[in-house]
Amino acid sequence: MTLASFDFKLHPRLVFGLGEIKQLGDLAKGLGFTKTLLVADSGLVKAGHVAQATTLLEASGIVVTHFQDFSENPDTNMVEHGRQVAAKSHVDSIIGLGGGSSLDCAKAINFVHCGGGNMRDYWGHNKATHPLLPMIGVPCTTGTGSEAQTYALISDAETHIKMACGDDRAAFRIALLDPELAVSQPHSVRATAGYDAISHAVETFVTTKRNAVSDAFSRQSWRLLSRAFPKLILEPGNMEAVGEMQLGAWFAGCAIEASMLGATHATANPLTARYGTAHGAAIAVMLPHVVEWNQLRQYEQLAPHLSQHLADLAMLAGLPGSLKELNVPSEDLPLLAQAAAEQWTGRFNPRTFDAAAALALYQRAY
Amino acid sequence: MTLASFDFKLHPRLVFGLGEIKQLGDLAKGLGFTKTLLVADSGLVKAGHVAQATTLLEASGIVVTHFQDFSENPDTNMVEHGRQVAAKSHVDSIIGLGGGSSLDCAKAINFVHCGGGNMRDYWGHNKATHPLLPMIGVPCTTGTGSEAQTYALISDAETHIKMACGDDRAAFRIALLDPELAVSQPHSVRATAGYDAISHAVETFVTTKRNAVSDAFSRQSWRLLSRAFPKLILEPGNMEAVGEMQLGAWFAGCAIEASMLGATHATANPLTARYGTAHGAAIAVMLPHVVEWNQLRQYEQLAPHLSQHLADLAMLAGLPGSLKELNVPSEDLPLLAQAAAEQWTGRFNPRTFDAAAALALYQRAY
Repeated sequence: MTLASFDFKLHPRLVFGLGEIKQLGDLAKGLGFTKTLLVADSGLVKAGHVAQATTLLEASGIVVTHFQDFSENPDTNMVEHGRQVAAKSHVDSIIGLGGGSSLDCAKAINFVHCGGGNMRDYWGHNKATHPLLPMIGVPCTTGTGSEAQTYALISDAETHIKMACGDDRAAFRIALLDPELAVSQPHSVRATAGYDAISHAVETFVTTKRNAVSDAFSRQSWRLLSRAFPKLILEPGNMEAVGEMQLGAWFAGCAIEASMLGATHATANPLTARYGTAHGAAIAVMLPHVVEWNQLRQYEQLAPHLSQHLADLAMLAGLPGSLKELNVPSEDLPLLAQAAAEQWTGRFNPRTFDAAAALALYQRAY
Repeated sequence: MTLASFDFKLHPRLVFGLGEIKQLGDLAKGLGFTKTLLVADSGLVKAGHVAQATTLLEASGIVVTHFQDFSENPDTNMVEHGRQVAAKSHVDSIIGLGGGSSLDCAKAINFVHCGGGNMRDYWGHNKATHPLLPMIGVPCTTGTGSEAQTYALISDAETHIKMACGDDRAAFRIALLDPELAVSQPHSVRATAGYDAISHAVETFVTTKRNAVSDAFSRQSWRLLSRAFPKLILEPGNMEAVGEMQLGAWFAGCAIEASMLGATHATANPLTARYGTAHGAAIAVMLPHVVEWNQLRQYEQLAPHLSQHLADLAMLAGLPGSLKELNVPSEDLPLLAQAAAEQWTGRFNPRTFDAAAALALYQRAY
């Protein structure tokens, strides 16, 4: 630790436990919800979680309006659609139920519903000019961490640029983690979301912005995730492992709020933008190489031979191990490197990260 | 970890750094303070910290009323006096500057100023019926952790019983930790407050109420405190050690909020109540014996031979090593054990704690 200054505020209240979803109605009522927008993707509808949440909320006298017309990477058009639904129903609150897309979509709808304009107006940090509606976040995948964060990732429907829109007021008032809701996630989500959370733990542990608070969160998230991830991959019904993954992902989200990310996300994002690679798959390809390239003794505090350990975890989960496996054309690498160097998050990487560095990393990962 | 349910909310925003006290005026203004009660004991006045804080607040246009008529263990009469000062000045906010007494006194004044009645009305949890004034906590000792907690310890001026009065609304909005303010604390405070914080880390790590959140805080607080405490004892001007102690004490305070304490505080409190023993000195005598008596393998995750390690730290700091050294008459032990068994905090000890257990612990510590 150093005496370098920092300023940290942890926002949401965390409610955790098997079966705690039963509290949803009471928690919402406690925050004064009377008419709420339930933002949950269609996969959650099929799993029965939306029906369950609706029943619980209605039992507490809360009128529920549903919004589910969005896809995995929500864009500005979907958010605008959600805003119209929210306005028509005069909601006084929002609940995000599902994976990162549902939670991010809930935050984004809140921005434009309360402050007007387009999502582009909120690109960046603390651009909201009005108070936002109170929100509850209920993640149903083990990995997003969005429930602990004040940022929403929304794609511009025209330019396809992923915009990170964050504001202190966009924090969920309560994050409700119930392992029962996440145990039924498909294997692909279990693998990619889980690996993404692991990367959050590893990247936040070494950024130039890390501090005593992010350090506590990074370590705890690594402790939980590194133990639970292989357990859950081998035994998807292991409820304790689901709970540890949920808590680990929450800590990792808290760590991002305090510490930002690094070169892994900076090099992974262009792969998703250009080829539609699943975020967690792109992360799995890049993370072991970034760890090797950063060459930090600090990594040993997480695990000996961390880079190899991370590559083994990716293989165990059936995640891709190289850019070649992702069918990335080798002639694209310089273009990708240019795009990676422009990623904001690369600035917080402990080793100076620029286009040359990105190219070197892509070549290692090829 | 288990799937046992928990519900946690971390309240204050943490602002840390050398020289960050300069932000005090801006932070107070940002929270809307216009007329504030500065609760700081007379030791702080002598150290010049009160004058500095007043200058900073006035430079931000904030009218400052001072309250310093309280002593180390603030009682109900002192709190009532503070309430009168607050009422006369029509303050809209409170700042606690100093050790645990200043911070606890600030919280207590807030309770009776906003809700009326006597401090006894707030004994227990969430007894406040009115919103409280916004507060900033600025600890000037390395150990209290009160800045991270929603509880105030106030002695009943008639019965001398120490009442723990806690309420979610009694959380400081901001905890401001500046090593510069704590480096000049006297050795006795450095030793007792520091050792008390270490005990917070160790006790919270094993309570029956511990969870993934308290676990992260306990570990981080142990990591910081166990390293910085001996450093600071040997080299009191080591500013980095001061900062690590402040952060460690803050994490330990957060851990208490999530996990409560155990048999060490339960057996230490009657010593203070009966003989006026300094809290940290009583803790130093009891902690190594409680750790030995609890016999938990989990302690090895903090340090091998933890009990001996803790006894060594107490000796290094010149803290007492036995009840005999504290001049406790051996015939008092059964009476003390009765009082210890009634301490609420003993219920959270991992090994069942009753009067027989307390007597056994006192006999070991004699």
